[in-house]
Amino acid sequence: MPFKLPIKVYLNEDEIPRQWYNLAADLPSPMLPPLGPDGKPLTPEALSAVFPMNLIEQEVSQERWITIPEEIIEMLYRWRPSPLKRAVYLEQALGTPAKIYYKDESVSPAGSHKPNTAIPQVWYNKKFGTKTITTETGAGQWGSALAFSCSLMGLACKIFMVRISFEQKPFRKIMMQTWGGKCIASPSTETEAGRSFLKKDPNTPGSLGMAISEAVEAAVTDKSGTTKYSLGSVLNHVLLHQTIIGLEAKKQLQKIGIKKPDVVIACAGGGSNFGGLAFPFVADKIAGANIEIIPVEPASCPTMTRGIFTYDFGDSAGMTPLLPMHTLGHNFVPEPIHAGGLRYHGMAPLVSQTIVEGLATPRAIQQTECFKAAILWANTEGMIIAPESSHAVAATIQEALKAKEEGKEKVILFNLSGHGHMDLAGYSKFLEGKLTDWELPQANIEAAEQDLKDLPKAKMNKTGKW
Amino acid sequence: MPFKLPIKVYLNEDEIPRQWYNLAADLPSPMLPPLGPDGKPLTPEALSAVFPMNLIEQEVSQERWITIPEEIIEMLYRWRPSPLKRAVYLEQALGTPAKIYYKDESVSPAGSHKPNTAIPQVWYNKKFGTKTITTETGAGQWGSALAFSCSLMGLACKIFMVRISFEQKPFRKIMMQTWGGKCIASPSTETEAGRSFLKKDPNTPGSLGMAISEAVEAAVTDKSGTTKYSLGSVLNHVLLHQTIIGLEAKKQLQKIGIKKPDVVIACAGGGSNFGGLAFPFVADKIAGANIEIIPVEPASCPTMTRGIFTYDFGDSAGMTPLLPMHTLGHNFVPEPIHAGGLRYHGMAPLVSQTIVEGLATPRAIQQTECFKAAILWANTEGMIIAPESSHAVAATIQEALKAKEEGKEKVILFNLSGHGHMDLAGYSKFLEGKLTDWELPQANIEAAEQDLKDLPKAKMNKTGKW
Repeated sequence: MPFKLPIKVYLNEDEIPRQWYNLAADLPSPMLPPLGPDGKPLTPEALSAVFPMNLIEQEVSQERWITIPEEIIEMLYRWRPSPLKRAVYLEQALGTPAKIYYKDESVSPAGSHKPNTAIPQVWYNKKFGTKTITTETGAGQWGSALAFSCSLMGLACKIFMVRISFEQKPFRKIMMQTWGGKCIASPSTETEAGRSFLKKDPNTPGSLGMAISEAVEAAVTDKSGTTKYSLGSVLNHVLLHQTIIGLEAKKQLQKIGIKKPDVVIACAGGGSNFGGLAFPFVADKIAGANIEIIPVEPASCPTMTRGIFTYDFGDSAGMTPLLPMHTLGHNFVPEPIHAGGLRYHGMAPLVSQTIVEGLATPRAIQQTECFKAAILWANTEGMIIAPESSHAVAATIQEALKAKEEGKEKVILFNLSGHGHMDLAGYSKFLEGKLTDWELPQANIEAAEQDLKDLPKAKMNKTGKW
Repeated sequence: MPFKLPIKVYLNEDEIPRQWYNLAADLPSPMLPPLGPDGKPLTPEALSAVFPMNLIEQEVSQERWITIPEEIIEMLYRWRPSPLKRAVYLEQALGTPAKIYYKDESVSPAGSHKPNTAIPQVWYNKKFGTKTITTETGAGQWGSALAFSCSLMGLACKIFMVRISFEQKPFRKIMMQTWGGKCIASPSTETEAGRSFLKKDPNTPGSLGMAISEAVEAAVTDKSGTTKYSLGSVLNHVLLHQTIIGLEAKKQLQKIGIKKPDVVIACAGGGSNFGGLAFPFVADKIAGANIEIIPVEPASCPTMTRGIFTYDFGDSAGMTPLLPMHTLGHNFVPEPIHAGGLRYHGMAPLVSQTIVEGLATPRAIQQTECFKAAILWANTEGMIIAPESSHAVAATIQEALKAKEEGKEKVILFNLSGHGHMDLAGYSKFLEGKLTDWELPQANIEAAEQDLKDLPKAKMNKTGKW
C-alpha cells in the first residue's frame, strides 16, 4: 500500500524514559553556585525554608541520571508521551527540503509542558510532608499546571497571579479554581512584600518578580512549617524534570530511523521548555555530534542575546538567592508582549552556561514575525498555538528557508510548548493589525549593567568563563 | 514488571477504519423520507441547490459501508485516532467495579469531534466545484471546525454565528478568523431572512434556527452556483462521517481484549456526537448483543425524553425540508444553558428512529449535576471538558454507581466530545453557585403539539411506528 498516514510517533511502555537527564554532570565547566546576599555560596540547608530537602538534593545533584519514581511516571503518562509529529504541510507551504519534526506538549490537561515538573514537584513535596504549595504565575500556565497537580495529589495550592493578568485573563484563573487552586491577584494585602508594593503604587499592574516575592514570603512565614514554595522554571531541578521531553523525542526519532536532528529549536522564557527538549541533545553535542541548538526569545525581552551574564536575583524584591545567569537586571520590566511566558528578566543558569560554553546559539525574534508564523502554522498544520510556541515556529521557518536556499535536507526538531486557547486576544490584535514590534534601547542594557555591577559575584572573569 | 502505565490505546496504520458505517442499512424499519412543504418526499435533485450531489448521495444511501477517500483519511489522521483511555482515577473516586473507557475527541485542532465531518464535507464540496461554504454556528464549535477544514483545502467559509454567542464568546470568533473564516453575527442585514428577523425585533439575541435560515439563503441565492451550505449535525451523511469514532473504539477495545461494552453513553444535541460513537454498537445490538445505549440531553431541552416524534422543520423560519424526528417544535427557544451545543429543538432522524425502535434509551440530566460531574472529572482525570461532554460524564457516573450497587463489573464506554477551554465562564458561574436547574413546563410540550399537528406527515401512526 503506497498510501501513508501523517507521521505521528508514540512510544510503547518499554520505550518510555525511566530516568531524567542531568546536564550538570556533563557540562565542560562545573556550574557556578547560587550565592547568598553575603556573596557566599548557599548551602542546601539555607534553601530548606523554601523548598523540601528532596528537591534541593535534585537541585544540587551532579548525577547524570536520576530515576523517576513510578508513581510520577504513572501520573505523567496519563497524557504522555507527547506525540512526535512531522509538519509535512508546513514543509510543503515553505517548499523546503528540510524535514520538520515537533513535540506537541499542548496535550497535557493544563495545555503546556508545565505539568512535567509540576507533577514531580508536588509528589516530592507530598512525600516530604508539605500540605500547601505557594507559587506565582504570570500568564497563568504555571499556576494552572500546579493547581492541576495539587488537585491530583490532594495538596492545597495558593497562586499569586500578576494583577494585570488576573484581570485580563479571567479564564486562566477559572482553570486554577476548577482544580481547587486559590488564585490571588498580586500584589496582595496578604504579605508584607505585597503591602509594601501597594503602598509604593496602589495601582501597580504587578509583575512576575513581585509575585515571586509574595509567594516565597507566604511559604517561609507559615508557622506550621508545612507550606513550601514552588517555581515553574529557571532552577536546575525544574529543567531536570522537563528533560523527559527531549529523552522521549530521541527515542521517537530513532523509532523512525533518524539518528540525530541537525537543528533543535525551542522558545525560552525562564528556560525550562528549551532545556527540556534540548539538554539530551546538548549531551550529544558535547560528545561530538554536529547539532545546532537554538533557544528563541522575544526581541523585546532579549535576555540571552543582549543580556549580561552575571549574578542576579530571580525576583524583583531581591528575596531569592543570587543566580549566575543572563539577565536584563531584576528591575527590568518587559514590554507587555503577548507571549507572557517569555517576559522574564533572567534565564535558567543551566541554559545560560550552555550558551556561555558555545553549545547553544540564542536568537531573538519580534512578535509580529512570530504571530505571522503562528497563523501560517494554523492554516497548514491546524493547531492554534501559544504565542510562546510561535517563537519556536518562527525560528523553525527561518531555518527551513535557509535549508531551502542551501538545498539541504536537514532534520529540524522543535518544541511546541502549548496551545493558544487562552491567548486568542493576541491573535485578534494581530489580525486587526494592532500589534507592533519593539526594540529594547541600548540605554536599558547600560542601566542594568550599572545596577548589577555591585552585586556579589563568584570567581567569574569578564568573558563569563571560569 | 508489575508496574503498568495508565491505559491509552491507539491504532496502527493497518487497523484504522477505511469505511464509514451507515446505520440506515441495518435499522429494522426503513427510514422515513424528508418531505417538501407540499408533503411529498423530497427527491435528491430538490436538495441540490443547497448541497453538492456527492453528499446528497451519501445522505440517501442505503449501503452499509462507504469507503473513505484516502485524502480524507490523511487529513483526519493528522490527529486521529482519538485515544481510547480508561478513567481509572474516576473509577477509584467512585469506588465502582465498573471499568470506564472513553474516546477523547478533544484532540482535534478545533477541539471537538466536529472536524470528523467538516473535513469530508469540505473535501466532497471541493471535488464538486464548490468555492464557498456557508454555515451557522451556535456556541462556535461547528463554525471553528468548518473554518479549519476550509483553510486546509483552500475554500472560503462564511459563518452565521448566533448574535448572543458572537458577543459573549469572542474567542470562538477569533479562532474562526485565525483559520480565515468570515464570521457574521446573526441575524444580519446580509440576507432577506436576517433583515426580516431584525425588522421583527432589532434587539433579538438570534437563535440557531435563524442562523440556519440565513446560511441556507446565502448559499441558494449565490448566482455563481459555487456556494453551498453545510450542516454540522442532524443529517444522515453527517452522522455517517462521525461513525469513525465508534469504529475506532471497537478496534481499540478489541486490542485490549474487550469484546463489547455493556453500556455506551454520549451526549446528543443534533445527534452526531452520539451517533458517531454509538451506531457501530447499535449494529451489534440489532445483531443480538446485549448493550445498553444511552443518549444524554439537558433536562431544559428534553427533545428525546419529552419531545414529540413527528415531522418538523430543521430551522425556525421553515426553510429546510421536514424531517421525521423527536422535536420540541421549531418555535421552541431553549433556555440559555451553558451546553450551547445541546440547545436544539430537534434530533437527527437516525437517532430518533433508533430511539423509536427501542435500540437506545435517552436520558435527561440537569446542568448543575453535569457541572458537578465535570468538576469531579477535572479533579480525577485532569481535563477540563466541554459542558456538552459533561452530560455524558454525569450519565457515566450514574451508571458506574448503579454498577457499584449491583456489584457488577460492567464496561462503560462514553464519548468525550470536546474540551471546555472556551466554556470557562460556565465553570465560573457554577463554582460561584450561580447556576440553576430548570424544568420545561408541560404547557410548552402541549403548545408544540399544537404547532406541529398541521404539518405534513408521512405514513406514520400515533406510536411513531410505521
